[in-house]
Amino acid sequence: MEYTTYIKNLSCSSCGKSFTAEKIQTYCEDCKAPLMVDYDLLAIKNNVDRDKFRYRTKGMWRWFELLPVYDMDNVVTLGEGDTPFLHLNQLGKKLGLPNLFLKEEGVNPTGSFKARGLSSAVSKAKELGIKKVVIPSAGNAGGALAAYAARAELAALVYMPRSSPHSNIMESRITGAEVQLVDGLINTAGTYAEQKAATEGWFNISTFKEPYRVEGKKIMGYEIAESYEWILPDVIIYPTGGGTGLVGMWKAFLEMKTLGWLESETMPRMIAVQSEGCAPVVKAINSGANVCELWEDAHTVATGLCVPKSFADQLILRNIRESNGTAVSVSDQEIVHWQKQLAQQEGIFSCPEGAATVAGLVKLIAQNSIGPDERIVIFNTGSGIKYIDP
Amino acid sequence: MEYTTYIKNLSCSSCGKSFTAEKIQTYCEDCKAPLMVDYDLLAIKNNVDRDKFRYRTKGMWRWFELLPVYDMDNVVTLGEGDTPFLHLNQLGKKLGLPNLFLKEEGVNPTGSFKARGLSSAVSKAKELGIKKVVIPSAGNAGGALAAYAARAELAALVYMPRSSPHSNIMESRITGAEVQLVDGLINTAGTYAEQKAATEGWFNISTFKEPYRVEGKKIMGYEIAESYEWILPDVIIYPTGGGTGLVGMWKAFLEMKTLGWLESETMPRMIAVQSEGCAPVVKAINSGANVCELWEDAHTVATGLCVPKSFADQLILRNIRESNGTAVSVSDQEIVHWQKQLAQQEGIFSCPEGAATVAGLVKLIAQNSIGPDERIVIFNTGSGIKYIDP
Repeated sequence: MEYTTYIKNLSCSSCGKSFTAEKIQTYCEDCKAPLMVDYDLLAIKNNVDRDKFRYRTKGMWRWFELLPVYDMDNVVTLGEGDTPFLHLNQLGKKLGLPNLFLKEEGVNPTGSFKARGLSSAVSKAKELGIKKVVIPSAGNAGGALAAYAARAELAALVYMPRSSPHSNIMESRITGAEVQLVDGLINTAGTYAEQKAATEGWFNISTFKEPYRVEGKKIMGYEIAESYEWILPDVIIYPTGGGTGLVGMWKAFLEMKTLGWLESETMPRMIAVQSEGCAPVVKAINSGANVCELWEDAHTVATGLCVPKSFADQLILRNIRESNGTAVSVSDQEIVHWQKQLAQQEGIFSCPEGAATVAGLVKLIAQNSIGPDERIVIFNTGSGIKYIDP
Repeated sequence: MEYTTYIKNLSCSSCGKSFTAEKIQTYCEDCKAPLMVDYDLLAIKNNVDRDKFRYRTKGMWRWFELLPVYDMDNVVTLGEGDTPFLHLNQLGKKLGLPNLFLKEEGVNPTGSFKARGLSSAVSKAKELGIKKVVIPSAGNAGGALAAYAARAELAALVYMPRSSPHSNIMESRITGAEVQLVDGLINTAGTYAEQKAATEGWFNISTFKEPYRVEGKKIMGYEIAESYEWILPDVIIYPTGGGTGLVGMWKAFLEMKTLGWLESETMPRMIAVQSEGCAPVVKAINSGANVCELWEDAHTVATGLCVPKSFADQLILRNIRESNGTAVSVSDQEIVHWQKQLAQQEGIFSCPEGAATVAGLVKLIAQNSIGPDERIVIFNTGSGIKYIDP
């Protein structure tokens, strides 16, 4: 089957200025803010049947009309997306939540949700004629970029903190990427990537510094809507580092509202979970700030949450507030505790970031922020296997 | 949606004697041979539309009519099955094979194809009222059993060679299984499991010693048939340790032939790949034997292939011969070489067993056993991430 994208253009998430999607773009230089993809939603509304998507070949790319690639031949896929949506029966009983579900992103190619964004971004990079890509990564994004770049025949360079999980370094190297370990965290890795992009012409695929990773991630929102027969859940609890998933899903929910695809008015409260050792979003939400401060001395077992300041901080904060959501932080001890509980009660060996969403949920229950009958979706963003100490 | 299984009974793969599926069964005591599940294929042919399966919720259990569980409430699932079916464009070009595909089993829950068989077997164990399950495993089956047992609230005990990958030990323990490391290989682990079953009433879920793991594995065959629009491939190259996948898929192909679901007469040649350090099936195929000899001093980097003698050896040999297939062995060096090639050319970080199928394919090409236009399916049975040295 041949499908057609309805991509229209890009626009700055801050000033709204429009950019063409037919050329290579990065971010809005004036605002230092991410560019977001706009689709011709009216045309989709008129031409595309919401209920047809489920009959297509499984995977993220069955939502082609809502993804940014022009030519299907440019799609670089390893079979990402359409991840399991699992009812947590035992854990739900213990927490008094009969409608608790987990979106299991650990079964994506390369073992994490990063596969989605990088399938999307690498496909678009290929379409735009880019030949070499660089990324700063806390681990999983590097592994995913390496794999998709290999499949697309692009050169790949990954800057990763020296403290990143061993498996992420190994998986990136075996798929042919060059891995440079840096002393510091992801923001230091980000500086190296920027320099390499500026001086040697590598295309920087860093979170929100190009417009297309978020498009792959947003499909998680479409999958959840479809799983729930187009009635959105009441609460989404998401581990938030760079924030692509949270921003992406909120974008998806607004798109489907505009498209008239939703069966109820419910919009989920978007709840960001961070680690106590690195919680810039939580701090900003609590203080009423519109911008995150750089978190000093960040440290956590959940390496994916060790993001001292996201490039999309303002967008994350705005989306959480628009959704009447909030942000909570959890300790490493709580993460480790709930990782074990989730494994033993549900058979899901999650990454620490995934376990953090359970820990966050428990905090919200204690604060009376969650009703017992609410429909709640938590996320496991990656396989726990990737975090086993060498 | 509620579906109905068409399971009829069990029968011995050697003497054909019939057994009820309504009680707990193990294997045929007279023949020391596996029991296979028989379905009422005529009733399925009359009542079930082959083309409806693709419209059901994704996963192995959408083939419920062809699976052995009576009550859908007993299904224990983590979202296994419906794994990607990937065209190997770059590798295919290099090998002169435009129709080369890989079934990517590494994205199953727990990171391997073992999830399928253990979802099926644990579901049936739950249905039959079994409370504690024991398994001997080279690694991945232990991890999968532990996860599904946790989700089913069954006690789990895993006997694993001390040389098993570190990640398999860790994943089994975190999901709450008791792991006993044994000095020796999987057959030694098997002896321990048998003793535990005999003396303390644990149900032994060892390969082919109960009838239901093979049913989960067979669904790989249905998925491939559906992906190819019900024209079976010419060649299937499969890494063969215990042989459940090979036997299961061949069973599936015979079932769908009887069901009249196939669009062509083509039946695939089933090709078993083993390691030079443990190749009992290759030896028996080459010598014309109907039984495998126990392989002495077995050793290979592909731990899943380190099976000195499968309990289903006669069945494996019979199925390979029925299909006009063959068996080839490859060296550890070849496995490591092709693991890297597969990763760098296609972005697939396979397990050593998966890489062995590429190495086997290369041997078959050299022997002129593969035609350039043939439709070939190789298997990656697990994620390479699980094999990274600690």
